[in-house]
Amino acid sequence: MQINGVEIEDTFAEAFGIQVSRLLVTAATKKLAKIAATEATGYGTSVIGCPAEAGIDCYVPPEETPDGRPGYIIMICNMNKDKLDHELLERVGMCILTAATTAVFDAMDDADEKMKTGQKLKFFGDGYEKKLEVAGKTVFSIPLMSGDFLIEGELGIKSGVAGGNIFILAENQAAGLLAAEVAVDAIENVKGTITPFPGGIVASGSKVGSNKYKFLGASTNEKMCVTLKDEVEDTEIPADVNGVYEIVIDGEDEESVKAAMKAAIEAATTVPGVLKISAGNFGGNLGAYKIALHDLF
Amino acid sequence: MQINGVEIEDTFAEAFGIQVSRLLVTAATKKLAKIAATEATGYGTSVIGCPAEAGIDCYVPPEETPDGRPGYIIMICNMNKDKLDHELLERVGMCILTAATTAVFDAMDDADEKMKTGQKLKFFGDGYEKKLEVAGKTVFSIPLMSGDFLIEGELGIKSGVAGGNIFILAENQAAGLLAAEVAVDAIENVKGTITPFPGGIVASGSKVGSNKYKFLGASTNEKMCVTLKDEVEDTEIPADVNGVYEIVIDGEDEESVKAAMKAAIEAATTVPGVLKISAGNFGGNLGAYKIALHDLF
Amino acid sequence: MQINGVEIEDTFAEAFGIQVSRLLVTAATKKLAKIAATEATGYGTSVIGCPAEAGIDCYVPPEETPDGRPGYIIMICNMNKDKLDHELLERVGMCILTAATTAVFDAMDDADEKMKTGQKLKFFGDGYEKKLEVAGKTVFSIPLMSGDFLIEGELGIKSGVAGGNIFILAENQAAGLLAAEVAVDAIENVKGTITPFPGGIVASGSKVGSNKYKFLGASTNEKMCVTLKDEVEDTEIPADVNGVYEIVIDGEDEESVKAAMKAAIEAATTVPGVLKISAGNFGGNLGAYKIALHDLF
Amino acid sequence: MQINGVEIEDTFAEAFGIQVSRLLVTAATKKLAKIAATEATGYGTSVIGCPAEAGIDCYVPPEETPDGRPGYIIMICNMNKDKLDHELLERVGMCILTAATTAVFDAMDDADEKMKTGQKLKFFGDGYEKKLEVAGKTVFSIPLMSGDFLIEGELGIKSGVAGGNIFILAENQAAGLLAAEVAVDAIENVKGTITPFPGGIVASGSKVGSNKYKFLGASTNEKMCVTLKDEVEDTEIPADVNGVYEIVIDGEDEESVKAAMKAAIEAATTVPGVLKISAGNFGGNLGAYKIALHDLF
Repeated sequence: MQINGVEIEDTFAEAFGIQVSRLLVTAATKKLAKIAATEATGYGTSVIGCPAEAGIDCYVPPEETPDGRPGYIIMICNMNKDKLDHELLERVGMCILTAATTAVFDAMDDADEKMKTGQKLKFFGDGYEKKLEVAGKTVFSIPLMSGDFLIEGELGIKSGVAGGNIFILAENQAAGLLAAEVAVDAIENVKGTITPFPGGIVASGSKVGSNKYKFLGASTNEKMCVTLKDEVEDTEIPADVNGVYEIVIDGEDEESVKAAMKAAIEAATTVPGVLKISAGNFGGNLGAYKIALHDLF
Repeated sequence: MQINGVEIEDTFAEAFGIQVSRLLVTAATKKLAKIAATEATGYGTSVIGCPAEAGIDCYVPPEETPDGRPGYIIMICNMNKDKLDHELLERVGMCILTAATTAVFDAMDDADEKMKTGQKLKFFGDGYEKKLEVAGKTVFSIPLMSGDFLIEGELGIKSGVAGGNIFILAENQAAGLLAAEVAVDAIENVKGTITPFPGGIVASGSKVGSNKYKFLGASTNEKMCVTLKDEVEDTEIPADVNGVYEIVIDGEDEESVKAAMKAAIEAATTVPGVLKISAGNFGGNLGAYKIALHDLF
Repeated sequence: MQINGVEIEDTFAEAFGIQVSRLLVTAATKKLAKIAATEATGYGTSVIGCPAEAGIDCYVPPEETPDGRPGYIIMICNMNKDKLDHELLERVGMCILTAATTAVFDAMDDADEKMKTGQKLKFFGDGYEKKLEVAGKTVFSIPLMSGDFLIEGELGIKSGVAGGNIFILAENQAAGLLAAEVAVDAIENVKGTITPFPGGIVASGSKVGSNKYKFLGASTNEKMCVTLKDEVEDTEIPADVNGVYEIVIDGEDEESVKAAMKAAIEAATTVPGVLKISAGNFGGNLGAYKIALHDLF
Repeated sequence: MQINGVEIEDTFAEAFGIQVSRLLVTAATKKLAKIAATEATGYGTSVIGCPAEAGIDCYVPPEETPDGRPGYIIMICNMNKDKLDHELLERVGMCILTAATTAVFDAMDDADEKMKTGQKLKFFGDGYEKKLEVAGKTVFSIPLMSGDFLIEGELGIKSGVAGGNIFILAENQAAGLLAAEVAVDAIENVKGTITPFPGGIVASGSKVGSNKYKFLGASTNEKMCVTLKDEVEDTEIPADVNGVYEIVIDGEDEESVKAAMKAAIEAATTVPGVLKISAGNFGGNLGAYKIALHDLF
C-alpha cells in the first residue's frame, strides 16, 4: 500500500490498555494556561520510567470553557488506577494549583469512574474552602496567597489506549524529523489524543530485554538503529534510510488513536525524503490492541 | 528599608539544603534543545509532592558548548542523593535520550560527587555503545533509531540550597503577577539558579500542618491569603494588598540564591502597584539557611 | 451600565472604512506558517505611519486547508485600493514567497473585488510557472530554489472597518496590561478580525493636531495620559486610574468588529483592578462608523 | 575545500553597502520587549520590495541595559539615509512607542552619523515631553495613555554591509531547512548582524531581469531551482540535490558579516544530508563587497 507515494508497511502497532484522565486547565490568559499545562504534563513520556504519560490534547477558547477563560485540555495516564489517582493529586496540586490564576475542570466524557482529586485537594483550604457551582459543575474554591483556586470535585477517568504509534523511515534525519513535526501538527486536532514524548517525537526505540546485559529490562532496538545498519546482520533499516523517528500516541479510546495514526501517516508522507511508514509491535502478545496500518485507510 | 520606594520587610527567607545537579542539554537547534530541557524539568516544582525540583538555568550558545550546538543548562535537585540519582537516570533517559538530536554534558563546577548517569544509560546500547572523547570529556555514544545519543559518563552533584524566596505584595493580582514575571526575567541571568515553579511563579503558600484537618502535613497559609484578609483575625495581608505571589529559588550555593533574591527584589520593585516585599520562613527552626532580606543590600 | 461590575462608559468607538484582504498562509509545519504570517504582518499597526494595517486572524488546522497543511489566516488592510494592491504584492512576494515551504490562498468570503496578486507574482517564475487546480481553486506554481511556491491567482478584498476600539482604565499599569492581554485572547476567536498593534495592545493615544506644535498632524492625547492627570486641567483620567491601554480592532465588517469589541469588554472586565471601559472617538465627524458600547449588550 | 566533510564551493558572496541603525528596545518583561522588536522589524526582508531590511540582533539581559530592564537589539537598514531616517521614525513611532512599557536606546558603537529620531518623536508629547538623563544618556520622556515612553534623542547609523549570504545545497528540502535553522541559531550570537528574511531563511533566489518578461526587474534564478534541474539546460543544481536554502546576512561592517557567514557554514555543514555550500553573486560588478567562502577559513 502507498499513501502519497510512500510505502506503508503491512504491519501493526501494538498498543496497551491504560487509565486515562482528561482535564481542562484554564487561566487568566492563554499564556498562563499553557505554562501550567506544560509543567503538569512534563516528565511524562512513558510509564516505563516516568510516573505518568501526559501531554496537552488541545486549546479551548474562552467562549467554550466553563469559566469563560482560555484553557488547555491535558491528559494524564497510568496503567494503574491508584497511581493515576496519585499523579492527578500531585500534578494538579503541585503544578496547577501553584500556578498563577488557574482553575481545573473535568473534561472526560463517558468516564468509567471518577477520581476525587478536587474533593481531596480542597482540604488544603484548611476549612476556608468553599463549594460553588460554575456552569452547572460542582467546584471547590481554595484560598491561596494570590487569590482563589477553583477545581471540580471529581475528575473522570476511563480505560484508554497507550502506545499507538507509527515509524517514519526517511533518507536522512532531517526529513524524518520534519515529517515527525508535520505529523504532530496533524494529530493536534484529533481530540482525545496526546503525543507524550518531547515535542511529540521519539528518537529512540527499544526491545524487551537485552542480548548482552541480562540485568536490563529493555535496550535499544539495534535492528532499527540507522547507524548500526551495516553492523547488525538482521537490520530492518533499508540501505537508503538514514533517519527514523517514531510518533507515540495515547488516546481515550481505540478510535481516537486510530484517527491520530491515520492523520499522522497522511501528513508525514507529504514530506519529500520520507521513504516508508512502519509501526512498532512486540509480536502481538503483549498489548491488548493491534492496529494494522493498512486497515486505517 | 526601601528599594525603588517599596518597603522591604525586615525578615528572612528560610532555605534548605538540597542535592543539586546541573547538566547541559544540547541539540541540533535551539528549539529542539528547549523542548528536551522543558520535558525533563517538568513536574518538578517542589519535592513536597514532585519527584524532584527542576528547571532551566540558562541558554548556552553553540560556540560555548562541547559539541558546538545550542543548549540549555538544566538543574535537577532532590534532598536525597539516591533519589537524585534515580531522577537523573529517568529524566535524562526518558525525556532527553528519547528527544530528537540531543546530547547531555555535565555542567556542574566544583562537584562534591559524581553520579554515574551516563555510565548506567550506556547499557541501553546493548553492546553497541561506544566510548568517545568530546572536547576533552569522556562521553558514551548510544545508538538509537534516529542516530546516536551522546552523554557524558558522570554528572556532578553538590550540596546546594532550595527554597530561597521572596514574597511580592501588590495592590492587585495583576501587579503582583507582572512583578513576578519581571523578577523571573531578572533571575534568568543569575547563573547556577532556577525558579522551579510554573513560569517561575508561585501562586500559593503553605504552613506546616493544618488547624482543621489533622491528617494533613501542610495546608494553605491563611494569614497570607488575600481573599481571607477580612476573615482571618491575625492576617498578615495589609488592607491595600490584593495580590501576593512568591518566587522560589533553588541554587548551587547560598551565594547564587542570594544573588537571585537580590536581582528579583530590585526588578520586582520597579513595577507600579507593588507595595511590599517579604519572604517566607517557618520561624527559623526547619531550614539550614536564613537569608535576611536587608542583608542582601 | 456595568459588565462584571465594571462601569462601561456611555460613549462610542469611532471607526473608519478600510479595504480589507484576508488570506491563508500555509506551510509544512505550524511553526513555519507562523513565521511567514508574522513577517508579512509586521510594521502594520496603523496606516497613519505604516504602509498597511495587518495582523493574524486565526490558525487553521491541516484538515481545513486547501492543501492539507497547517496555516494562519492573515488580514492586510489599507484605505486605498491601489496601496492595498501594492502591499499585497510586496508583503506576499517579499515575506511569504521567500519563506520556507509556504503557499497562499484567498480566504475572503463575499469579496467586493479581486486583486490579481497571484497572477502578477507568477511572472517571477519567468516562464517556468504553471497553472494548477488545488481543491477547486486556480493556483499558480512558481519554481524557487527550495521548491515550488503556490499562490491562488486572485485574492479577494472588501470594504471593512478599521479602528474599532475599547479603552481599559485600570488602577495600575499591570492591571490594564493583563486585562488587555485577556481581551486580545478573547478576540482571537472572533473570525474576520485582527488587533494590528504590537501584541494586540496599544499603549498610546493621540488627538488630531497639536496644541503646541503646529506642524504636527497628531500628538499625544494629554487628557488620557495617566502621568499627566494632575497637570492637565481637563484630564479625563479618574483619580484612581493609573494605567490605560487600548485595543484597536480591524474587521471585515461592522458585525465582526462589534463582536470583537463585545468579547474584549466581557473578558477585560473580569480582571481585578479594571475600573472602567471607555472607547475612543473624534467627536463623530471623522469616521463612518459609531459603535456605541452600550449597544453591544 | 571541505568543512565537516561538506564541499565549500570556490565562489564568493556579493554584498552591498547599506546604512545601518542599531537600537535597543527594552520593556518591563522579556516577552513585551520581544513583541515590540518583532513588530518593528517585520515587513523587512529586502529593500527590493520592503521599505527596510530589519531584524533582531540579540537579547540583552536587564543588568546590561541602561534602564535595568530586559531588551532586544534590533537593526533597521536602508541604502538611502533619508529613507532610513523615515523608517526609524515610523517603525519606532508606530511599532515601539505604541507597544506596552517600551523604551528605546541607541546601540550603535562608532556611528558615522546620528539620526534625530528621538528629538523628532518627542514632539508627539505636545509640550509635555521632558528631557532626562538615564545612565549618562540624553533621553526624552513622552507621556502616553499607559505611562511614559523613553527614547534616546539620537540614534547612530553607519555604513554597513547587506546581502552577505550562503547557499545550502542538500539532498532534500528537510535537510536544507534544518541546516538553515542550525545556521541561523549560530548567527544569533554574532553581534552586529541580522538575518532579515522570515525565520532567517530564504526559500527563493533571483536573477537580475527576466528572460521571458521584459517588464520584470528580477525573476527566479531558474538555474538554482531544484524542481527545474531536469528542465533547465545550464542548471547549477547537482543531480543529488533536491533542496536549496539561502541565509542572507546584514551587518554593521564586513567583519561581522564574515563572522556570521563563517559561523553559518560551520553549523550548517554538521547536518547530515547537506551536500554543498555555495554563495550568491551577480558576477561581481554590482556589489561593493566580494566575500570569498574559502577566505573565511
